[in-house]
Amino acid sequence: MTVAQFSRLEKDYPWITGPIIASAPMLNIATAKLAVAVSSARGIGFIAGGYDLSNLEEQLIQAQALVNKVSFQQSQLQQNPGEPPVLPVGVGFLNWGASLDATLPLIQKYRPCAVWLFAPKTGVDDLVPWVRAIRSEVSYDVKIWVQLCCLEDAIEYTEKLLPDVLVVQGCDAGGHGFARSASIVTLLPEVLDQLRSTNPSQAQNIGRPFVVAAGGITDGRGLAAAMVLGADGCAMGTRFLASPEAQIAQGYQSEILRASDGGVNTVRSTVYDRVRGIYGWPTKYDGRGLINRSYEDIVNQKVTEEENKRLYEKEKLKGDDGWGPQGRMTTYAGTGVGLIRAVMPAARIVTKMRRDAMESLQRPILPAKL
Amino acid sequence: MTVAQFSRLEKDYPWITGPIIASAPMLNIATAKLAVAVSSARGIGFIAGGYDLSNLEEQLIQAQALVNKVSFQQSQLQQNPGEPPVLPVGVGFLNWGASLDATLPLIQKYRPCAVWLFAPKTGVDDLVPWVRAIRSEVSYDVKIWVQLCCLEDAIEYTEKLLPDVLVVQGCDAGGHGFARSASIVTLLPEVLDQLRSTNPSQAQNIGRPFVVAAGGITDGRGLAAAMVLGADGCAMGTRFLASPEAQIAQGYQSEILRASDGGVNTVRSTVYDRVRGIYGWPTKYDGRGLINRSYEDIVNQKVTEEENKRLYEKEKLKGDDGWGPQGRMTTYAGTGVGLIRAVMPAARIVTKMRRDAMESLQRPILPAKL
Repeated sequence: MTVAQFSRLEKDYPWITGPIIASAPMLNIATAKLAVAVSSARGIGFIAGGYDLSNLEEQLIQAQALVNKVSFQQSQLQQNPGEPPVLPVGVGFLNWGASLDATLPLIQKYRPCAVWLFAPKTGVDDLVPWVRAIRSEVSYDVKIWVQLCCLEDAIEYTEKLLPDVLVVQGCDAGGHGFARSASIVTLLPEVLDQLRSTNPSQAQNIGRPFVVAAGGITDGRGLAAAMVLGADGCAMGTRFLASPEAQIAQGYQSEILRASDGGVNTVRSTVYDRVRGIYGWPTKYDGRGLINRSYEDIVNQKVTEEENKRLYEKEKLKGDDGWGPQGRMTTYAGTGVGLIRAVMPAARIVTKMRRDAMESLQRPILPAKL
Repeated sequence: MTVAQFSRLEKDYPWITGPIIASAPMLNIATAKLAVAVSSARGIGFIAGGYDLSNLEEQLIQAQALVNKVSFQQSQLQQNPGEPPVLPVGVGFLNWGASLDATLPLIQKYRPCAVWLFAPKTGVDDLVPWVRAIRSEVSYDVKIWVQLCCLEDAIEYTEKLLPDVLVVQGCDAGGHGFARSASIVTLLPEVLDQLRSTNPSQAQNIGRPFVVAAGGITDGRGLAAAMVLGADGCAMGTRFLASPEAQIAQGYQSEILRASDGGVNTVRSTVYDRVRGIYGWPTKYDGRGLINRSYEDIVNQKVTEEENKRLYEKEKLKGDDGWGPQGRMTTYAGTGVGLIRAVMPAARIVTKMRRDAMESLQRPILPAKL
């Protein structure tokens, strides 16, 4: 991050410090409590609007109340004198389902600092009206974050949406992403090279969107690696599942702490949507979760789709016992799940991560004589 | 890498400098020419012994001749006074097929500095006799490298084989690896944490094997990221496909330069083995390659297995025109393929990468005031 970029970051989100550390708008899990906790630690939290905006208004009201209780300085939230303060959290949408008409009045009324767009039904063109409306019909400056999983989308989204932030998601991520995808190890540098080559005259990268890495980052080492690859920060989902602020069943959270070796013990699949009757995701997407009976029984052809759904519904009645390798409750998690060994307050996750990343980057990697 | 580890590296491979940069023993491609070029640039090259050792002796003879032409200092190759010099390249095996009895006399005779073991038929126990024989029946000190794709194997291999080097391979890698796997972003730190926790009393990590990252690393940024994640260096395959020393068809090499967006344009599959009549890989493995008709026709159920093989055999006759998205020639490549834009001498790949990685790590990542 250059000096100019850092100044832009401070201007865009006055309560943030670099590197950017965001909590992802995880469906049903990323509530106001989690989002405000992350922002209070000088990160940026996102509330899940999901595909149907259910509970979104309630969460925004809660976020307002929580922000008033937390010690944000008024100067960090005011955009312009005389205007109401901006809410220092963002809102995320699953665009294959979310309604723009229902969204706009909520944004106008509750003033989240940013929207995070993801997974349009057919492609970038679905997002154009969103970006246009948010930029023209909302009376304050809402930052546009877009999440993408491949180079081609990074190029198209950048050209057609002029987003403020690209969330570049690699294959290690928990939950939804492209079924076929690279990790951030290769995707980030390829996206950054492209941004540089299409915008060669921009001194100090001021003109390009911020690039936030997502997928597999769970601690300071991961953030440091993403920054060495060129990212301006990271977004995390799985790590925040093990925070007291996440709205998550005990059985699910226990699995996050128990599981290890995420490459082999998680899998990318559409089965975890299908058992829950969710059919709206565009075909390129699936979700990464811990392997359980819902998956095993389908791949081993032990059950039909209908039977698998029925068994899932039955499993729900077990409560927390429905999770685990022998359970059936969906347990979205990234491959970094094995690096998460304790529940930690969300604000502490953010501050520890920032400090650890900076330490990683300052430590000499080879003996000095080289 | 600590000072103690660096001293061990210099002792083990006197011509190397840190970080370790290795060329992988790619079947049919990693010949003596490539391996010696990499070692001549203070990296370490591996010759492919594959699963049937065909051409291995010929390549070892060539390597001896090439090493004599290149300016290795005699002191860098001599292990003990009076003994013949060690060959400053290693040899890699696909252990599900390779014969230990055929291997041992070749090692004894040609004295490669290291062997690289990968993909045993059933598990680590298959490798125990290899390691025992190499350590007891060969009269000089051969270093043992083992490649693995998950935490569980990292633990087992370390305990049962006491290897000198763990090659930790993430899902971005081209060619063979675990069908279900994490990238190095999460796998490396999880492996390193495990090594640390099982070996807590070892000061300065002297006791643990070197950890070499593989999968998606193609330039200095990738190497720097791997080092920030804790690796002692990297091994690369795909990057060296675009070197004049690789034994590779022009059509294949052109595809490496052309392809981009590797997450979506490559795929992990067993089809590229099946069309070539290779059935020996253990079931956990598949291979990542650029998507072409061999893959598309099978997943879209346009052809039978037999027809696909027949079409592959026919495609061979087209020579270089058989490669490409509309072709059928197998084009193994990692997700980092889009970062490779020019053919470059292997020695220059190594020296440039080392320099670029060190520069990445020395550049301030955030403005100094933080």
